[in-house]
Amino acid sequence: MKANNERIQKSVEELSEFTKTPGNGVTRLSYSKEDLKARKYIKEKMKEYGLAVKEDGLGNMFGKLEGKMKDAPSVIVGSHFDSVPNGGAYDGAAGVIAGLEVAALFQQNKLTPNYPLEVIAMIEEEGSRFRGLMGSSGITGSIKESDFKDVRDFDGVSATEAMSNAGLDKSLPTYRDPQTIKAFLEMHIEQGPILEENDIPIGVVQSIVGLTQLNVTITGRAGHAGTTPMDKRSDAVMAATNIISKLPQLAINEGNNTVLTVGRLQVSPNAANVIPDDVNFTIDIRSGKEEHILNVLKNVREIIRSYNSSGIKTSVEQRLYIKPKALSEDIHSILSGACANLNISHCTMNSGAGHDAMVFSDVTDVGLIFVPSKNGLSHCPEEFTHEDDLARGANVLYETAKKLTEG
Amino acid sequence: MKANNERIQKSVEELSEFTKTPGNGVTRLSYSKEDLKARKYIKEKMKEYGLAVKEDGLGNMFGKLEGKMKDAPSVIVGSHFDSVPNGGAYDGAAGVIAGLEVAALFQQNKLTPNYPLEVIAMIEEEGSRFRGLMGSSGITGSIKESDFKDVRDFDGVSATEAMSNAGLDKSLPTYRDPQTIKAFLEMHIEQGPILEENDIPIGVVQSIVGLTQLNVTITGRAGHAGTTPMDKRSDAVMAATNIISKLPQLAINEGNNTVLTVGRLQVSPNAANVIPDDVNFTIDIRSGKEEHILNVLKNVREIIRSYNSSGIKTSVEQRLYIKPKALSEDIHSILSGACANLNISHCTMNSGAGHDAMVFSDVTDVGLIFVPSKNGLSHCPEEFTHEDDLARGANVLYETAKKLTEG
Repeated sequence: MKANNERIQKSVEELSEFTKTPGNGVTRLSYSKEDLKARKYIKEKMKEYGLAVKEDGLGNMFGKLEGKMKDAPSVIVGSHFDSVPNGGAYDGAAGVIAGLEVAALFQQNKLTPNYPLEVIAMIEEEGSRFRGLMGSSGITGSIKESDFKDVRDFDGVSATEAMSNAGLDKSLPTYRDPQTIKAFLEMHIEQGPILEENDIPIGVVQSIVGLTQLNVTITGRAGHAGTTPMDKRSDAVMAATNIISKLPQLAINEGNNTVLTVGRLQVSPNAANVIPDDVNFTIDIRSGKEEHILNVLKNVREIIRSYNSSGIKTSVEQRLYIKPKALSEDIHSILSGACANLNISHCTMNSGAGHDAMVFSDVTDVGLIFVPSKNGLSHCPEEFTHEDDLARGANVLYETAKKLTEG
Repeated sequence: MKANNERIQKSVEELSEFTKTPGNGVTRLSYSKEDLKARKYIKEKMKEYGLAVKEDGLGNMFGKLEGKMKDAPSVIVGSHFDSVPNGGAYDGAAGVIAGLEVAALFQQNKLTPNYPLEVIAMIEEEGSRFRGLMGSSGITGSIKESDFKDVRDFDGVSATEAMSNAGLDKSLPTYRDPQTIKAFLEMHIEQGPILEENDIPIGVVQSIVGLTQLNVTITGRAGHAGTTPMDKRSDAVMAATNIISKLPQLAINEGNNTVLTVGRLQVSPNAANVIPDDVNFTIDIRSGKEEHILNVLKNVREIIRSYNSSGIKTSVEQRLYIKPKALSEDIHSILSGACANLNISHCTMNSGAGHDAMVFSDVTDVGLIFVPSKNGLSHCPEEFTHEDDLARGANVLYETAKKLTEG
């Protein structure tokens, strides 16, 4: 029995209902009301497919099918279920649904594996509320449990407080001994144009780009928009926009698919007739090679520093730094073999986006596949992947999980 | 009997308590909880000083001392009681308190004028919630009552809804026949450095700069920060920051104290790893001569238009346009004479900021005086004017109101 396209599509539609912005894409931040609704739904599906459900101290969910071997490490399949603000129905959710579909197929095909199978649904991969890759970083220990206390959202609410407000149990363990993990498999939408443009349904990922995220603060002096002469101003918006307008060229000069994005920007006090005294913005830099990230980072810091003056103060905080990562060659060849056995054309590619798979690759063997994104779009309401492509991905994961749980 | 410095200072301190941001300056938006508390306080003071209190259909407050002549037009004294976000305790409030002090002096000195005296406390001069100069524009009819239905705050709440939520009565009349107004007097803080630098306690204003405010929207295309190559982006933040970084030079080139401010800027969806598809910002342009405003406006529009492309759409909405205004020469000389009689040194000056006085000057004789701002600062928590300067201003207003209500 193969993946059920209708069941997959139904899950995509049902999960996308749990959004703060109906009609304007999916907004599902970690520990929000929408998280709790999606959480309930995913747990119910896990139980329906015969899995034993557990949560950890960050609110990650695990549904486990025990294997014949006692205390053997698990093959974990899944992704994250949070979204960016006004994002789409597929980024993260598609991988969780594919994991659930793999479990459904194990159940329907009455398979009892040697090694346990676990379906995983993780929090906060996007970092839209706290920080990127937080769920997987907690599991693998690349962020310490004690660090989570200091992680706050832009309203100053800590992750611990937010969990407690949502009724989740922060006291559960979060770190998981890598010895309990045999492999991690993830299906994700490509979020780029390559698969669609080349009419290839599956991309088997070889390596993941590195990324860094900076938080920049520009502090000037507030003043009245009408009575402060131009030469007596310390205008934080003018300093910030001058800086930002110079940044894209740094990535373009570096080449090699290096990209730079200023995605978040807040102005204070943010009134039409007040000269702003504070601007806060993020800079996201990514590349397949670490040297490109470091070069751009150095130039970005120099430009920002050059705007320090008597009236303007700048500060740069590095919120995230992740090196480019190569994934498991063994699993890459099992995934490619599964595609071949299923007569699904596929290609080898790199991932321009960070994924939970990247974090797991520090502690276990990891496989990651991409399915096509319509028009290459992602992180927007128009994000779309056809159910047939989702089903192809789920079948490839199922064949690979079968093989990995056998021996 | 002269103005009571202690009573004035006490009112400044008490009114400044009605803020949404205690410890971080005064934030008192129209129709907010803080507005309602300040409103109650001001009405109580009006009654205490023997005034009959009325509100209009926009929530402006009037406290009236009847004159000996039946149905005669009023001399109105006062200012606005809203503030910018994280502003100071003096912008607007000082003028309302000076108006109350004038009424207190009429009471203490047992004066019954020929013409009625009215103390006024107006809403929404700052435009931090709806639009600038809204209270006075409603009274004078420069905005039609029907227009207020379409005025919405940045959460989409209309002024009518906000008033109704605050329990105010929108059904009361707003427009006031100019025949019922003999003159309008306002005391305001200078919000600039001139009086302090020259050690002059009173500035008698001759003319008020004109201003225009634009609302600019830049629309691009959202996308993933990691998977969208630099040359395939339609990044609204990059277009907006390029535009904004070019704007200050336009005002500097124009000279003649022309100023330009981008005070408000919002990014959507505003997440670190999403290429923004929408940026909305304000442009505020002011000058003492209309030609300078029009020149800068033309150049601003040209620059914005030049960023239209296949991926980026720009739009510009003119939210406000007010010509520079000359005030009444007769009242100017009464105010100057009052300063001379009181032995208060004074100077004639122009106002770099728009004021309710400017709106009233379309329909009646207007006088406006400035008192010094410490370090020239305004629209910030550090905004400060000494109680002795406030009392000097109140005495000048009292003498002038006495004269104008006599004949």
